[in-house]
Amino acid sequence: MANCWEQAAQDQGSAARAGWLTARDGTRLPTPLFQPVATAGSLRTLDWRDVLKLGYRHVLMNTYHLVVRPGLAEIERAGGIKRFTGWPGSVLTDSGGYQVHSLAARVSKRPDGLRFTDHVAGGRWHFTPASTLQAQLTLGVDFAMCLDVCTGLPATETRVRADMRLTHDWAREQAALWPELVGGLASPPRLFGIVQGGLFTDLRRESVELIGGLGFDGVAVGGLAVGEEREEFQRLAAFCGPLLPAGRVRYLMGLGDPADLLFAIAHGFDLFDCVQPARMARHGHVYSRLGKFQLKHARFAGDERPLDPGCRCYVCRTHSRAYLRHLLMLKEHSYARLLTLHNLYFYRDLLGRARRRILSGTYARWWPRQFVNLDRVLPEDL
Amino acid sequence: MANCWEQAAQDQGSAARAGWLTARDGTRLPTPLFQPVATAGSLRTLDWRDVLKLGYRHVLMNTYHLVVRPGLAEIERAGGIKRFTGWPGSVLTDSGGYQVHSLAARVSKRPDGLRFTDHVAGGRWHFTPASTLQAQLTLGVDFAMCLDVCTGLPATETRVRADMRLTHDWAREQAALWPELVGGLASPPRLFGIVQGGLFTDLRRESVELIGGLGFDGVAVGGLAVGEEREEFQRLAAFCGPLLPAGRVRYLMGLGDPADLLFAIAHGFDLFDCVQPARMARHGHVYSRLGKFQLKHARFAGDERPLDPGCRCYVCRTHSRAYLRHLLMLKEHSYARLLTLHNLYFYRDLLGRARRRILSGTYARWWPRQFVNLDRVLPEDL
Repeated sequence: MANCWEQAAQDQGSAARAGWLTARDGTRLPTPLFQPVATAGSLRTLDWRDVLKLGYRHVLMNTYHLVVRPGLAEIERAGGIKRFTGWPGSVLTDSGGYQVHSLAARVSKRPDGLRFTDHVAGGRWHFTPASTLQAQLTLGVDFAMCLDVCTGLPATETRVRADMRLTHDWAREQAALWPELVGGLASPPRLFGIVQGGLFTDLRRESVELIGGLGFDGVAVGGLAVGEEREEFQRLAAFCGPLLPAGRVRYLMGLGDPADLLFAIAHGFDLFDCVQPARMARHGHVYSRLGKFQLKHARFAGDERPLDPGCRCYVCRTHSRAYLRHLLMLKEHSYARLLTLHNLYFYRDLLGRARRRILSGTYARWWPRQFVNLDRVLPEDL
Repeated sequence: MANCWEQAAQDQGSAARAGWLTARDGTRLPTPLFQPVATAGSLRTLDWRDVLKLGYRHVLMNTYHLVVRPGLAEIERAGGIKRFTGWPGSVLTDSGGYQVHSLAARVSKRPDGLRFTDHVAGGRWHFTPASTLQAQLTLGVDFAMCLDVCTGLPATETRVRADMRLTHDWAREQAALWPELVGGLASPPRLFGIVQGGLFTDLRRESVELIGGLGFDGVAVGGLAVGEEREEFQRLAAFCGPLLPAGRVRYLMGLGDPADLLFAIAHGFDLFDCVQPARMARHGHVYSRLGKFQLKHARFAGDERPLDPGCRCYVCRTHSRAYLRHLLMLKEHSYARLLTLHNLYFYRDLLGRARRRILSGTYARWWPRQFVNLDRVLPEDL
């Protein structure tokens, strides 16, 4: 099986890489790549036309949420998740392991898999290493993820080690099972393994070595961006990045914050996902090149400037802060969509600029200053 | 002042007319015309790009809502309502008279105008015949409406007569004041008068004669579509339509239901507005050529057909009932926007078909059958 990721450039002064990730239909996706999250087959507040216009050709969905609603049978009857949702781009699905963290009270870990009591109607589900792969094949995605155990924080080393070992057992099982499952497919999905190990570098090293050695098409780091302090995040991301196999796509799951994305890119990660740009938008938070701000702030009443004077997105070309704030104060649904459009444009633009810097070998000089700006909370002198 | 409406055709077997309404910038709007309602400067769940793509070049906004939020000062500073909102089409504003009905408990009628206690912060406002005209000039709209008193139901003849007389006094005052107010403007907005008189034909006749004789650019019928029985509505619309001046645009305010629109067109009305297509969409109600239906209905789970198999809108070309119902059950905001897009497309398409029927002189034969279909509630045999 040919590699689904190829490198296009290596930055001069950092571990940052630019490359191409190839989807099932041959579409080449530029990396570093941010994946917007369309949890249960919908990117909140947007339609697919919006997503395409923003320049995204690829989204992440959650197997768990889709299995619960509308259910695999309905999606299969429609001809897979792309036919069901009408999304013409590519899809990566998370396997359900993240829900060990996000829905902890509803999940129990067993040696043979995860048992869920769902958050909708209290139905009971059993996700095994084999069944989650089969589910993702039924969905018809481009990139599937192994079932893992994402340990929430705080966690003792004993617990993190136990979760990691379970993740490893399942990874071995899934790596062995996969060729058989996709044997009959002309153009099979790609399967990514997931590294765990919490905030412990020894465990992370062990996990990278094991998962990296199982021949997956890509290697993901899970169990970060789950609420740890930024220093901890940086310590672990900087530790794991360079250890990961150089020739394969490196995915830091659940990231996240724009400044953190630049940090992770500098340490060799290629792929990301997070609900953050859309969720923040729904709460009135706006990203801009000068810093982030809360649009409800009285400072923005009557402010006729666009959200980000340097931005060329539809929203910034059409509307003022004053008008968007007016919609927000009115609780008109459309504010959430317009801010989501802006924030997602901002993310794509940011990662596009990062990629161009890597291609020209100037990323290491560029990103630290951007990091400071992205972290700034406005108004300062605005 | 040249007439802002010209007739293009008269149906053979009914009073239906087709024509052109000319906006301030010279844009010609085809009539019969349905005006989507962008209450406080926003068409709920949509952005302007959506509205334009649906084929609408004209919307209605509410003076009262805009005066309360964000306030005339902010809109004036931005350069008028079109600059403030970014809407590139034309605008008609209701004057505030409708709020006598919709916000009855917050309004008191005085001989010199309406006093409001607003629904947001309890601020106090005084709308006089002169001040509402001035407000609409400040907003910079294409079509302004006179201040009137829209009588709620039920109402005694004595009360309806008193409200009508007040409406007439203000109409005379506004007709006299208007030339002076717009004297300096190269391309002034158009001013429409409003007929009242409740469900009493004698009063309606008196009101049509008085308002029709004051030289307004258009004549509107208010105080219908406020909750009366359909038979009452039909009796009054059929009575008023033919009495209105033939050479001017005839506006039936607050309508409404698709079947009722066809009825009103058959009786000589040209212009309409209502929140209904958008509001119904937000509650999961869908219009189709076969009838209307509630998408939540279990019948539509797994239904891979488009909302309306005969419809060519973006939503019907892209999504199935099953997927849209999935979004609705998930309470994803986007369902409201997608159903609003479909319903507003349906209204525009319906009025476009009505216009073509009038142009070919076949409206009278066409509309009664459509009326029956529009009124049907699905699933019947679906």
